[in-house]
Amino acid sequence: MSKSEFWKEMDDVRAAMLGIGSARHVPMSPYPDDKEGVIWFITAKGTDLVKAIEAGESESSLIVTGNGEMHARVEGRSEVVQDREKLEALWNPIASSWFDGIDDPDIRLIRFKPDFAEVWATKGAIGFAIQIAKAKVKDEEPDMGDHFEVRF
Amino acid sequence: MSKSEFWKEMDDVRAAMLGIGSARHVPMSPYPDDKEGVIWFITAKGTDLVKAIEAGESESSLIVTGNGEMHARVEGRSEVVQDREKLEALWNPIASSWFDGIDDPDIRLIRFKPDFAEVWATKGAIGFAIQIAKAKVKDEEPDMGDHFEVRF
Repeated sequence: MSKSEFWKEMDDVRAAMLGIGSARHVPMSPYPDDKEGVIWFITAKGTDLVKAIEAGESESSLIVTGNGEMHARVEGRSEVVQDREKLEALWNPIASSWFDGIDDPDIRLIRFKPDFAEVWATKGAIGFAIQIAKAKVKDEEPDMGDHFEVRF
Repeated sequence: MSKSEFWKEMDDVRAAMLGIGSARHVPMSPYPDDKEGVIWFITAKGTDLVKAIEAGESESSLIVTGNGEMHARVEGRSEVVQDREKLEALWNPIASSWFDGIDDPDIRLIRFKPDFAEVWATKGAIGFAIQIAKAKVKDEEPDMGDHFEVRF
């Protein structure tokens, strides 16, 4: 899997679990940015993720599982950044419903820079059944989808 | 969320990411067993998960994310067990396509006993949009689904 394919798959991920340092994994909406090679998250002051970064932690993992789509463990580093232009680009009805407008001082932007991803590209339930059937006919292990490592 | 609701939701989870000790999260098919209060996984000798358990590690986390379903981080302990009766109960076309029959000596059963789960029960994309619309009318934060802790 190429980096560009990884970013393309990430575009379809609506929710994933982000953990930073000692802050356990929680569901977050990822906003991938293939040009910069980072994934953005909109969150709020005082969340465990933001507190971990404020305490000097940065090592992060994003865990993606789906229903017949990509499974991935993406590792890298996160920081909280003030980037008004980026916030305006990401701003959407979901984000706006959580805050008191784009100027709400509680908004925090997390910038996650992946440096490694382990990716399992599944083929969906139908492809999956076919692979199993094929394996039975050919007496070999089924192709359960491709397994890749991506370095950024 | 009650324990029984948790087990009911787990029944619909086809893939989740399991990590044990220093063995990183990888996709696995969970077989929940609400009577025993454990989740079983069928895997093979020599996988990182099995090696971690053989090296004395047991602390585990199972990360579940879906598309508008339950998101969860389930924590507990794992062991490798030899349980022929359980293996026969779990045996299915997917498992059988990976191994050389149920007597394949490479088969390993992992028994994961959760002791804590943090669960986010989302309402699906439609419910989600309605909650946001409601929040806009009522000038309050949307109900993004319920957030629970489950102790086992």
